[in-house]
Amino acid sequence: MSTIKCDVLIVGAGVFGMSTAYYIKKENHALNVVVIDKEAGAGRGTTSKSAAAYRIYFTSTINRKLAASSVNFYEHLQHEKKIDLGLHQTGYLWLLNEEKYKRLAHAISLMKKENLPLEIWDRETTQKNVPNLVTDFTHDEDRELLNLVPVDYSILTKRAGWLDPHSLVSFYEQEFKKMGGKVYYGKKVKKVLLEAEPSIGLPKEPHIWQKAKISGVETTDGTRFDANTLILATGPWTNFLLDPLGIDSHTKPKKRQLFQLKSQKFSIFKAPPAFSPNPLPFTILPYSGVYFRYNPNEETVWIGAADNIGRPFNDPEKSIDDPQPEMDFYEYGIYYVLSKYFPIFENIRVDTAWAGYYTYNTIDKNPYVFRADGLNLIICTGGSGSGIMKADSIGRITAALYYEQKEAKLFGDVPFNVDDLSVKNRRVEHEEMVI
Amino acid sequence: MSTIKCDVLIVGAGVFGMSTAYYIKKENHALNVVVIDKEAGAGRGTTSKSAAAYRIYFTSTINRKLAASSVNFYEHLQHEKKIDLGLHQTGYLWLLNEEKYKRLAHAISLMKKENLPLEIWDRETTQKNVPNLVTDFTHDEDRELLNLVPVDYSILTKRAGWLDPHSLVSFYEQEFKKMGGKVYYGKKVKKVLLEAEPSIGLPKEPHIWQKAKISGVETTDGTRFDANTLILATGPWTNFLLDPLGIDSHTKPKKRQLFQLKSQKFSIFKAPPAFSPNPLPFTILPYSGVYFRYNPNEETVWIGAADNIGRPFNDPEKSIDDPQPEMDFYEYGIYYVLSKYFPIFENIRVDTAWAGYYTYNTIDKNPYVFRADGLNLIICTGGSGSGIMKADSIGRITAALYYEQKEAKLFGDVPFNVDDLSVKNRRVEHEEMVI
Repeated sequence: MSTIKCDVLIVGAGVFGMSTAYYIKKENHALNVVVIDKEAGAGRGTTSKSAAAYRIYFTSTINRKLAASSVNFYEHLQHEKKIDLGLHQTGYLWLLNEEKYKRLAHAISLMKKENLPLEIWDRETTQKNVPNLVTDFTHDEDRELLNLVPVDYSILTKRAGWLDPHSLVSFYEQEFKKMGGKVYYGKKVKKVLLEAEPSIGLPKEPHIWQKAKISGVETTDGTRFDANTLILATGPWTNFLLDPLGIDSHTKPKKRQLFQLKSQKFSIFKAPPAFSPNPLPFTILPYSGVYFRYNPNEETVWIGAADNIGRPFNDPEKSIDDPQPEMDFYEYGIYYVLSKYFPIFENIRVDTAWAGYYTYNTIDKNPYVFRADGLNLIICTGGSGSGIMKADSIGRITAALYYEQKEAKLFGDVPFNVDDLSVKNRRVEHEEMVI
Repeated sequence: MSTIKCDVLIVGAGVFGMSTAYYIKKENHALNVVVIDKEAGAGRGTTSKSAAAYRIYFTSTINRKLAASSVNFYEHLQHEKKIDLGLHQTGYLWLLNEEKYKRLAHAISLMKKENLPLEIWDRETTQKNVPNLVTDFTHDEDRELLNLVPVDYSILTKRAGWLDPHSLVSFYEQEFKKMGGKVYYGKKVKKVLLEAEPSIGLPKEPHIWQKAKISGVETTDGTRFDANTLILATGPWTNFLLDPLGIDSHTKPKKRQLFQLKSQKFSIFKAPPAFSPNPLPFTILPYSGVYFRYNPNEETVWIGAADNIGRPFNDPEKSIDDPQPEMDFYEYGIYYVLSKYFPIFENIRVDTAWAGYYTYNTIDKNPYVFRADGLNLIICTGGSGSGIMKADSIGRITAALYYEQKEAKLFGDVPFNVDDLSVKNRRVEHEEMVI
């Protein structure tokens, strides 16, 4: 078995892993930092499957902090450093019925006080500003059957939009490599190596009376990566690596799907007067978690739905390595809702579709960055569907944890208490604005 | 398919499930409450695999409250009601090195203030009182290899011991049946039925625009149990039932093993002067989580170990229905430690062994009692290895949650805020005294 030795091994070249690699290497160029990934390139796992939307609006203060600082950094790269991340600041448009609006009202007023740019529109204004939108179903005979709710309000959150995750991951990857960082692709971890320290060669070590440490990982091609510290940035694969060690990732993977529709009809979303020259914002329907993103250059729309109850964790019938989209889910699910609120979607068929995984922190829906008790093992995970927009902060926080710093410095010199994202001393609020 | 209808269906006739059934039925005899279990009788799953020890000493205030009230109830049954639960109040003896003692000191002084009966012994007293114990390894050549630590202190917690879990479960079962409660054995749940409300007969219901509800369960023998409310008291099987619904149990199953040794030599533990007429307390070694319980009537010792790091969750190679003890774990693991602290165990072979599962709440190690968001589904779980000693309280709290009462009345009229064990409004301290 060939062995590669390093100081720090990061598993996962997604946006959390590459950002972490970059910030660890940046602090100490002499450190031998290695990233491995099962895919053929960076950001090709769940990072590439996402709707790639971003926003700085969350009900959890910590989530707002993580996202705002990361988005500031991305804008800094795009505008000052002229590194094209494909940022489209289209905003998010949250269509809400009375009940949902009331539930968010407190958080929204808090964000207003923090001067996060947003507008609240009543039904009439929403109706006027959003092309093709139906806001009232009083006389729709399917109203009861489909549980349709009216659009009573909408909230336009402006510092939001979408970006190109591949450009973002590539930025971190290139900078990491420039400093001498090494990345190995096509390396799938078979298992994390937990060994006795020292080993005395008994079968089934480590035994309960032995000290244990992580030596590294073994990959399916028979390579062994030895590291002083192992960092897992493995998203939905984390349980598969940690469960055999009896360590809880505190997350569960849940499949999420995106459906792309293509039609010249969508040009009505290109630059509606209320948003011109921008296109229609990333739009969230008032129930069932359906959302869509219009891509002006391609005349496509990407559509997803935050299905929760009934959508299994770790879909047992399919391998986690190859999640498949289900046409039924669009045809019997999303379509019925979407074509009611936006009749333009009627009779347009799905062009292409794909699926990835949310790595869900089901308790508070904030990320986790923690050290496994007494081990040389760090885990950063729990993007919960909003990982890309927090990735810069997560990289800095994971690096700070690695360097045993209590405080991380986020972009813009924002201090962040590293322990706030830990398991034991966690200090986060429950996130209510999840899609 | 034959269908059985009821108001409340409780899956799991272990100690959490039967206690819950009893308290729900007690409050309203007219309610049709049904319990089902895959085994042929009550308490034959993990309840029967445990070391069946009890104590009222925990570092989490909530855990102390749950256990103290339950143990008070068990003593009430045994002593006032003359229902033999096989209670043996032998105490627990925690053997500790300096470091561990210091870590527990704050909690111990708190418990002293609460007048929980306990004694703290120095090394000399411990040495004098505990037959066959070795407290000092300064001159032991294996000290470094085995990471042996001295016994600097011991804590004797007196309101603790062990009981017969079968008698306890049977008490709840008999009382439940007397009130007209029904129990079906040999019924293994194949799946929990999540259905659209109302169903309109589309494939793959419920869709995202439909209201969903739990209709009940389907068992592997083709029976359907329809219920207005489903309660899962399924311990380590909970993930297997909830993951397909995309609901997190917030627990992970971890195999735990017990090894029985039989020898006349163990009679030295029968009534040592310091404990007479009681036997040696349930004894916990100062490291590696090894503990043992001496059974005076059988001259047997039950030995276990709280192996944590390296012991997988959901052992992937073995079915969760049939966990097997591993002789290697005793021979290369426990034996090396145990025979150093108690040389009497040298050269005694394992007589019999068995294995069960801890249903671990890996975050705070207190139980969970919660309603799944927006569904007619209640989950009580997370015994984390100390479920039997809290079962009476858990049954009362789960019943209170079912009846939508904010406050449960524990035995002795102790009020308990039901929400404290929920997911969203959880208010518990991290438990440090876990074995």
